[in-house]
Amino acid sequence: MSPSVQQAVEALREHFGTRLSTGAAHREQHGRGEAFAQAFPPDAVIWPENTGEVSLIMRTCHELRVPVIAYGAGTSLEGHVSAPRGGICLDMTRMDLVLAVHADDADCVVQPGVTREALNTFLRDTGLFFPVDPGANATLGGMISTRASGTTTVRYGTIAHNVLALEVVLANGDVVRCGSRARKSSAGYDLVRLMTGAEGTLGIITEATLRLHGQPEAVGSAVCSFGDLRGAVEAVIELIQSGAPLARIEFLDEVQVRACNLYSKMSLREEPTLFIEFHGTENSVKEQFERAREVVQSHGATGFDWAADEQRRSQLWRARHAAYFAALGLRPGCECVVADVCVPISGLAECVAAARREIDAAGLIAPIVGHVGDGNFHVLFLLKPGDTEERARMERVYDAMIEHAHRLDGTCTGEHGIGLGKRDKLVAEFGETVVALMRRLKEAWDPHDILNPGKVFQT
Amino acid sequence: MSPSVQQAVEALREHFGTRLSTGAAHREQHGRGEAFAQAFPPDAVIWPENTGEVSLIMRTCHELRVPVIAYGAGTSLEGHVSAPRGGICLDMTRMDLVLAVHADDADCVVQPGVTREALNTFLRDTGLFFPVDPGANATLGGMISTRASGTTTVRYGTIAHNVLALEVVLANGDVVRCGSRARKSSAGYDLVRLMTGAEGTLGIITEATLRLHGQPEAVGSAVCSFGDLRGAVEAVIELIQSGAPLARIEFLDEVQVRACNLYSKMSLREEPTLFIEFHGTENSVKEQFERAREVVQSHGATGFDWAADEQRRSQLWRARHAAYFAALGLRPGCECVVADVCVPISGLAECVAAARREIDAAGLIAPIVGHVGDGNFHVLFLLKPGDTEERARMERVYDAMIEHAHRLDGTCTGEHGIGLGKRDKLVAEFGETVVALMRRLKEAWDPHDILNPGKVFQT
Repeated sequence: MSPSVQQAVEALREHFGTRLSTGAAHREQHGRGEAFAQAFPPDAVIWPENTGEVSLIMRTCHELRVPVIAYGAGTSLEGHVSAPRGGICLDMTRMDLVLAVHADDADCVVQPGVTREALNTFLRDTGLFFPVDPGANATLGGMISTRASGTTTVRYGTIAHNVLALEVVLANGDVVRCGSRARKSSAGYDLVRLMTGAEGTLGIITEATLRLHGQPEAVGSAVCSFGDLRGAVEAVIELIQSGAPLARIEFLDEVQVRACNLYSKMSLREEPTLFIEFHGTENSVKEQFERAREVVQSHGATGFDWAADEQRRSQLWRARHAAYFAALGLRPGCECVVADVCVPISGLAECVAAARREIDAAGLIAPIVGHVGDGNFHVLFLLKPGDTEERARMERVYDAMIEHAHRLDGTCTGEHGIGLGKRDKLVAEFGETVVALMRRLKEAWDPHDILNPGKVFQT
Repeated sequence: MSPSVQQAVEALREHFGTRLSTGAAHREQHGRGEAFAQAFPPDAVIWPENTGEVSLIMRTCHELRVPVIAYGAGTSLEGHVSAPRGGICLDMTRMDLVLAVHADDADCVVQPGVTREALNTFLRDTGLFFPVDPGANATLGGMISTRASGTTTVRYGTIAHNVLALEVVLANGDVVRCGSRARKSSAGYDLVRLMTGAEGTLGIITEATLRLHGQPEAVGSAVCSFGDLRGAVEAVIELIQSGAPLARIEFLDEVQVRACNLYSKMSLREEPTLFIEFHGTENSVKEQFERAREVVQSHGATGFDWAADEQRRSQLWRARHAAYFAALGLRPGCECVVADVCVPISGLAECVAAARREIDAAGLIAPIVGHVGDGNFHVLFLLKPGDTEERARMERVYDAMIEHAHRLDGTCTGEHGIGLGKRDKLVAEFGETVVALMRRLKEAWDPHDILNPGKVFQT
């Protein structure tokens, strides 16, 4: 622990007492998220309980030039929450209150440590829900910071479309509010969208006003499988182009279906498969289902099981959400690297097929899943821990996937963010000049580089 | 003309020839937008034809510290396009090509001088359309720069939801590309959203990739009127809360309806009125219409005329779009100040009613229209040119409207922007610390303050 960190810890211990820990177990636990191999424990962990406490920490760390890293549920996949330069981890999970629900305006105000599942449980009897669903039960602060999206984005947008306002503590401890509860605004630079996806490098989010949506009157799900990948993806393209208001449309390749069958005790055909969900009125859900059936069948789909009942639907989506754990089950004891690229939908079939070919040619085990309505897909690389040669093969395949996405004017990350893992890919995507713009912005707002330093780009 | 501007003009004339003008008529014409009284003509106007030319202008002006102001259709309402510090106006209207339409991906690439109507004419046979509709036939560059929205935002989002990528020329002439054609991305700071609404103070937009939408299979419109304002607004609140996927829901108060009847030769009841539009399949449009009828009638609506035929629908929406000119017709020879506030929908009835009371108490003539599904409304103050006393009364009413919006956690501008006119309101909305953050960002990217200087905030 450097002298300056030591000094900060001593200064802050006075206020936080046992809510500040330098214990090895706490530090280890906060040194990494999920599925990112490298761990860098912070020097200390603090559990703040309100905005004033976050401001106090920032003031102290600003004065002493100590790095500060915010930590939510720890479900980040790109090393966002690790502390490669040491410093203080803010575990935000005690700031977990839903502060207000404005049912008339379909919005709510939450602290950053509220998880998406906790929020939806809280909202259950209001007729409203928060739709953004990245799979993991992440905290809302973390979801905002990584610009999360997930299965429902095709209908309800990413989290960036669903944040109305933020309270943020800046590098020097100043507390600011950006945005408002108005549904739209042209008032100055859009700092809400700038903070969304900034991975904690521009400020610490201490409160968020979120847009809610009416719980759909009726929900229907359907599953179908295809003889080959191309049929599945072409069905998706046609569905999206027809303007069908699908609520979710998820792809699982045959390897992932096998994993789900094993893990979730299902008996789906082990072929490229789509899970589709429809939201609307009873009539419109039925109409959507019938139209979708026509489309998928014209692309050679087998089966188009209607899962209108809650139980069957829950089973399906639980299986989809468990895809990560199901994949891990394919190779007991493995580590998993979850690749994430997003391309214009016209290039999706080509990209997924190329990924599958390269995975197989490299002798890797890796199911593929995708939020295909958005052109976003994930390869779940299952790796033997410590096998550097296998990891190198994986990296070659992943690099080729990203290059492919870039050739199609896609992105190196649809929803997981840059963190530590993809800083060179950010440069590949936009060029040095754009990354320099981001860096200049960061320097202007955080001149001592204490907010999650070294994430998003080298500093 | 200052010596540095003189020098820039001489240097650039070599390249631009007759596409650079210092003529009084051109300068006057580019010194103001619509509905903003103060004109500040630039020292010169240049009509660039490609990105390289914009870069050349920026390099020259950067070196010589000359202000540069981008100009599109001149429909800005807050003085964005005026040149209070002189400098060079870039008239972008010759950069008016649609560079690509990717029908499979439902996106297109345009130059900034393409207008929204020109784009939709271009798209007519593709099955796709660009939905953002601020009323005026603005250029897309201008719409992006002011974060425009309008009548269809309730369904299709603002322009910020419909820009995927931008090519931007920075203050020093560097050309950068932000965003991609992927539907979503978590790659670094969201510079696309930052440029969107930056009012030309951070860069000059030279190309935009826009999201398109499928032309709806069926469209229906309806009109109904209410005995009082509250009934109309409460009907809107209930419709929005029910999750009805309305494509447009527009409010006109009795004064505006009278103006429209006179101007567009219609015979609507001169009462608070809603224009509603439904998009979907034939069945879902019918279902939406029937449900909307139940809701509006339960709030005391008179009539709910179904305007399924194209002709009747066009007449209605032409009348709505002509609201500004219809209002001007109420007081021949008048000037019009178009007020713009946006509030959480629960406060909308209260806000509109208070505005009407204060307009009447101040003896002003001012119809009210609103994109009420978003909580956004406009008061069209009709003023006698040069009557400073009347203008002062107007300003008191408008200030009170904005204070009211702020008390309800709304915004001082839903869609028109800050420009010159609302810089003090931006401070009132967010406080000095937030505006200082915006200023630091501007300084970091445009250290000589040459990009539309003095707009959004004092510099």
